Amino acid sequence: MWKGVWAALLLLATVCVQRGYAKEAKGTQSLGHVSVVIVGGTGDLAKKYLWQGFFQLYANQVSSGYSFSFYGGSLLPNDKATPILFEVLKGVVCPRELSVERCALVREQFLRLAEYRQLKTSEDYQALGKHLTEQLTQEGIVEAGRLFYLSVPAFAYADIAEKINNSCRPTDGAWLRVVLEKPFGHDFSSAQLLSTQLGTSLKDNEMYRIDHYLGKQVVSKILPFRRENSKHLDLIWNKHHIERVEIVLKETLDAKGRIPFYERYGVIRDVIQNHLTEVMTLLTMELPSNLSNTKEVLKNKLKIFSALQHLDRNCAAIGQYQAYNAEVQEELSKTKEHFSLTPTFAGIIVHIDLAQYEGMPVILTSGKMLDERVGYARILFKNDIFCIQSHSSVHCKPKQIVFYFGHGTLQYPAILVSKNLFKPDLMDTEWKEVTEHKDVSVLGLPISDYYVLTPTVEREAYAELISHIFQGRKDSFISAENLLASWSFWTPLLQSLDNTFPRLYPGGADNGNMLDFKLLGREVTFANEAVVMVTQDHMGGSGTESFQVMQGKYRSADMVSAWPEELIVRLAADLQAAAENAVREGGCFHLALSGGSSPLALFQRLARHHYSFPWRDTHVWMVDERCVPLTELDSNFRTLHDHLLQHVKMSYFNIHPMPVQMNQRLCVEEDSGALLYERDITQLVNASSFHFVLLGVGYDGHTASLFPGSKLDARGNSLVAFTESPAKPHQRMSLTLKAINQAQKVGVLVMGKSKHELVTQLSRVKDNPNNWPITGIRPTSGRLVWYIDYDALLG
Amino acid sequence: MWKGVWAALLLLATVCVQRGYAKEAKGTQSLGHVSVVIVGGTGDLAKKYLWQGFFQLYANQVSSGYSFSFYGGSLLPNDKATPILFEVLKGVVCPRELSVERCALVREQFLRLAEYRQLKTSEDYQALGKHLTEQLTQEGIVEAGRLFYLSVPAFAYADIAEKINNSCRPTDGAWLRVVLEKPFGHDFSSAQLLSTQLGTSLKDNEMYRIDHYLGKQVVSKILPFRRENSKHLDLIWNKHHIERVEIVLKETLDAKGRIPFYERYGVIRDVIQNHLTEVMTLLTMELPSNLSNTKEVLKNKLKIFSALQHLDRNCAAIGQYQAYNAEVQEELSKTKEHFSLTPTFAGIIVHIDLAQYEGMPVILTSGKMLDERVGYARILFKNDIFCIQSHSSVHCKPKQIVFYFGHGTLQYPAILVSKNLFKPDLMDTEWKEVTEHKDVSVLGLPISDYYVLTPTVEREAYAELISHIFQGRKDSFISAENLLASWSFWTPLLQSLDNTFPRLYPGGADNGNMLDFKLLGREVTFANEAVVMVTQDHMGGSGTESFQVMQGKYRSADMVSAWPEELIVRLAADLQAAAENAVREGGCFHLALSGGSSPLALFQRLARHHYSFPWRDTHVWMVDERCVPLTELDSNFRTLHDHLLQHVKMSYFNIHPMPVQMNQRLCVEEDSGALLYERDITQLVNASSFHFVLLGVGYDGHTASLFPGSKLDARGNSLVAFTESPAKPHQRMSLTLKAINQAQKVGVLVMGKSKHELVTQLSRVKDNPNNWPITGIRPTSGRLVWYIDYDALLG
Repeated sequence: MWKGVWAALLLLATVCVQRGYAKEAKGTQSLGHVSVVIVGGTGDLAKKYLWQGFFQLYANQVSSGYSFSFYGGSLLPNDKATPILFEVLKGVVCPRELSVERCALVREQFLRLAEYRQLKTSEDYQALGKHLTEQLTQEGIVEAGRLFYLSVPAFAYADIAEKINNSCRPTDGAWLRVVLEKPFGHDFSSAQLLSTQLGTSLKDNEMYRIDHYLGKQVVSKILPFRRENSKHLDLIWNKHHIERVEIVLKETLDAKGRIPFYERYGVIRDVIQNHLTEVMTLLTMELPSNLSNTKEVLKNKLKIFSALQHLDRNCAAIGQYQAYNAEVQEELSKTKEHFSLTPTFAGIIVHIDLAQYEGMPVILTSGKMLDERVGYARILFKNDIFCIQSHSSVHCKPKQIVFYFGHGTLQYPAILVSKNLFKPDLMDTEWKEVTEHKDVSVLGLPISDYYVLTPTVEREAYAELISHIFQGRKDSFISAENLLASWSFWTPLLQSLDNTFPRLYPGGADNGNMLDFKLLGREVTFANEAVVMVTQDHMGGSGTESFQVMQGKYRSADMVSAWPEELIVRLAADLQAAAENAVREGGCFHLALSGGSSPLALFQRLARHHYSFPWRDTHVWMVDERCVPLTELDSNFRTLHDHLLQHVKMSYFNIHPMPVQMNQRLCVEEDSGALLYERDITQLVNASSFHFVLLGVGYDGHTASLFPGSKLDARGNSLVAFTESPAKPHQRMSLTLKAINQAQKVGVLVMGKSKHELVTQLSRVKDNPNNWPITGIRPTSGRLVWYIDYDALLG
Repeated sequence: MWKGVWAALLLLATVCVQRGYAKEAKGTQSLGHVSVVIVGGTGDLAKKYLWQGFFQLYANQVSSGYSFSFYGGSLLPNDKATPILFEVLKGVVCPRELSVERCALVREQFLRLAEYRQLKTSEDYQALGKHLTEQLTQEGIVEAGRLFYLSVPAFAYADIAEKINNSCRPTDGAWLRVVLEKPFGHDFSSAQLLSTQLGTSLKDNEMYRIDHYLGKQVVSKILPFRRENSKHLDLIWNKHHIERVEIVLKETLDAKGRIPFYERYGVIRDVIQNHLTEVMTLLTMELPSNLSNTKEVLKNKLKIFSALQHLDRNCAAIGQYQAYNAEVQEELSKTKEHFSLTPTFAGIIVHIDLAQYEGMPVILTSGKMLDERVGYARILFKNDIFCIQSHSSVHCKPKQIVFYFGHGTLQYPAILVSKNLFKPDLMDTEWKEVTEHKDVSVLGLPISDYYVLTPTVEREAYAELISHIFQGRKDSFISAENLLASWSFWTPLLQSLDNTFPRLYPGGADNGNMLDFKLLGREVTFANEAVVMVTQDHMGGSGTESFQVMQGKYRSADMVSAWPEELIVRLAADLQAAAENAVREGGCFHLALSGGSSPLALFQRLARHHYSFPWRDTHVWMVDERCVPLTELDSNFRTLHDHLLQHVKMSYFNIHPMPVQMNQRLCVEEDSGALLYERDITQLVNASSFHFVLLGVGYDGHTASLFPGSKLDARGNSLVAFTESPAKPHQRMSLTLKAINQAQKVGVLVMGKSKHELVTQLSRVKDNPNNWPITGIRPTSGRLVWYIDYDALLG
């Protein structure tokens, strides 16, 4: 008899006899056999959590009618690994509810049901598959399913999945579940690649991507808590009431011993892209009407992802504990010159571009070698009370909800709600209210100022998730869409941080206030001057200099040059200064903007970072427009609208799209659209002189929609004209050279390596507007400034 | 010899001899004579502050070359008042810098220079005028000026000013200065009236309106402090950094003995309209380039006034201390049934509609019978730091600047700046830094967490202001424009509070948290349920019922009725609910709005209070439009824009004005504007069925721009049509009955007594759209709701 089945039956009988439930036991139908294979079964995670989790599953399910067998697999040969595995297995502990006698029995049984198998080659997997099938046939047992838990480095996933697919698929009707542990890729494209590779071997519903945070009791309670307390929360769960959201995971440990992994990932990939991001989506997503509807939950999560504002380098403050670099040098056998830029600490500010959360900062932060081990999410509400004389009264105190994942001062998982907010409803018998407290303080408030909820029975995250996998509940796992959405959000930040030097911190209490960071609009910076500075020597060739802005001359006009990002920062700042100046002097600012792709980054910078730009007193005009309806995607105005106008508060009357569509037709001379626009300019703009005109320049030297060979001077005194482009759509409307040259300031933005040749060429040609329209830009009494990035300038 | 002059010369000689400055004294030229008349010279204010202030002026100026005489005047006959006055005069104390001997001499002299005169009738003033002139002539002294300080009830101002003008104007070349104490009127129109009345007797530059807060050293330091520290403040003095501004004046006293005054004024008129408002303007106005340029200061102050957002009843929480009513009954001889609604406490939230301060709450609060006497303005900055582990570090603490006027825990006037903000510059020798502290806490921070500045010499506000009057410095006084601007801001709130019941509070420490108030967007409410409730009996006939909303039927459709303000609140709430519902279901909300004056209050309510309205997903359409350019003031769109659209953040593409102007002409059939609008509707609005159409109704029964006798049915299937109005401008564009009746919900808003007859009439007529276009509104499958206020419903 196959030992697994035998053991299970034996145990079942024993239990029944012991408990005297002979009748019921006899009635228990066999629900089939489940084979569990932990690939990487002698690794750290398996030792610490997985075997324990599966043991708990076994203990819970042993009387349910299922029979089990467990296999630990790894690359090691049997003789080496078997003793290791059994050492681990002996360490499992029983759930509290089991009596001592029963515990001994169940543990003994579990040990008998488990065995080690080397899983290295295709042959090993074939042998395993054959073994599983034979056993079932031999015993004549129905198969329920096969569960493979891949506790191995991610690079091995695709290969193992393929082997499983080739050799270990269960018999018809039984399920296959393959559990994957993060990291699921390193960035968006590697995650996508991995997803594609896995997709060739496994169906989507066969994959269970674990984020063990979703197994934490407090995390999995976030949505139910929001639902159960919606009558209180609906009113206050928005930007008007929430001051900020903080999601924090502080560790005291270092990365020693795990450097080969950590050096490749760093803190953002290790815990922020997954754990903290998941918590953020749970906190901010729209509540699904049915919490266990996986599809609806996913849909709402994805809505949050698509509303997250793009992150750039300025949205993060990163650090690295001082000993890290030496650890890298040692564990990766690097020289003393090697300098790692991998962050072990990050503070990141995230904004969600939904009306509900607009402007509300979400802070994600995590680090190694900090002062304490603690994880929590805190929703801090705005202080909306004015206390006339009762300052010690409870309602004058901070209002917050804290999802406390564990550790820290409290030492147990809990949901805390300030007493001046509301008394949370307890609709769930798995949770209870704590009323007896030690004298501790949690996030600025004594514990007695909170209503405190805690799980009646504390459960380990892995054990929870293993039981969900067994039940086939997919809602606690990361779907492919979710994963890719998260990577697509984080990848640009990770890339922009690639060459950023982290602030060094000593670790532990010595960190003092070194890692405190400051929120500035949509950016963060460390709040204090760095005490430990990275010296120039460490920074290799490029140095800080490369980030600086250079001023010079180009075509005998002023030129500002810098790396792309800095150039945009500078141009945006110049625009704001011009705007403020114009508003101060004349009450309004007339700005004419060009189409094309170069200004996109500028529009985004203005929309996201220039929150004190005087939009209210700004008129926005178009330099040129394509003859397409304004709402179409290739309309210059539509681009401007989507990237800038819709994000700022402007008067309808101050927005001046070009009237390319009139009388249901596009750019027809008789409709006099150009004349109409000219009249608007004449009426509204003092002396028809714009304060700032922003231009680009095309490969052919065109600017605005003024193309070579189009006899620009023939237009006489008009300010606006219809023009013809060599590219589609051919018809355009454009400001004329006259209109542009009347401006007080003209900026020409040139970006990208592909413009280098043009920049070189232009530096040599004489003014010849008919061949090179851009050379016709010679402001009569205003100032011309070229904004050229290093890519375009230096090639 | 005239005793005043004699005394002054004698004193001068004495002083010089005593001090040994004989030479200088001889050289001191006589700068002329100054006569000071305190009308109401035996009243409370004169007793407490004015004589002391003038004595200080005298002590400071006695060696300057001016000679003085002082008159106390009142309605009392000489024999009664003279002893009273001399009792007061004997009480004056010398400035600290005077030696004991000199003090005795100066005081004795001052007493000789002062005399009492009855000032009741015109003859009394004539006699005074004659006396002043005769004395000057007799002594052959040049006159410098005459200073009349009117310390009398405001109702007497105009009369006294007239008498002064008729009989007491000084000789040519000498100045006349008339000092007025608040209250300057009771509301905008009375202030305007008073201003006009005074203007017939006095020139503007002759009037000195005192707000003694402007004489407080800390208050008069606000602008210089802002200037001196502008390098720190410029960056943070805005909505992005300031969480809120609090301007607080707490009193422990009651109004007993002053009830006849207080009952007429209440706390808002008594201290908020003037003192606290002045402080608010000083804190928020743009810094003038020259602080002593009175005109520029005024201009900048007025800019703030014109940017203050309209206040309504919901912007204030008012209270009355419990004993007040009995005091009113007693002092005003009222019956026990009399119930006063005068507030003795108010908490008010003000918003400034400038880009710099948008959304930043300014809290003004004051009350009698509170727990402590204290006055301060506090600028609380946002918490923009995330403290990783150094929570006790100074930069993790609250950041604030406190202008501490005096009293309270600190007991001296001071400017306090949190140490985590910046170290204030001390450019002014009249101020010093305090570094030795008692162990006190000021507004939540121990004093040692602040940089503390205090005046080197403490000066009394009245003495300061009297010296300014003497110097002719007008910048510390309230100009007529300033005064009227302030009243024009406060009057609507005062009117809207006229019938509001204040919350009763016991007074002192017993108030507990009763008066704490909560900020809700742009509104405030008391934070706690009232403990002391006003019973129905006290409230007279109308009762709370009158504030309720009634639901019923009108013309067999649903009707909502209420008092005007409540009706608008309800309609706005219904609109928001419809919007949220539509956005939830289909992602967007199509709203068609009418012109006319009725919806103005609705637009304002939506703009100011509905901060969570889903504007981003709302399309706004016009129900009808006048054929005028959209930017003209009588354009329906312009009204909508100014009162609603420009205050909310909407996409340009979601705003749909009617195309009444095309090809540079208005509403020409061939331009097909109506067709164009119809096409837009068809393209964007699902089934051309608006989610909500808001209509009004005219006296002639017209709705939208559909007028009687215009054959509405003849329009066939069109959704938009040109129409003719009997009133100018005749040409209109309008949605048709068909378009309106296709809507999911149609609201008809009818307000005002003048609509009562119409409402009665309409309730009787049958459906007859040609005579009564409004009766053609019969939504096909949608719902019609009449919103009729009690004025229109009940007449």
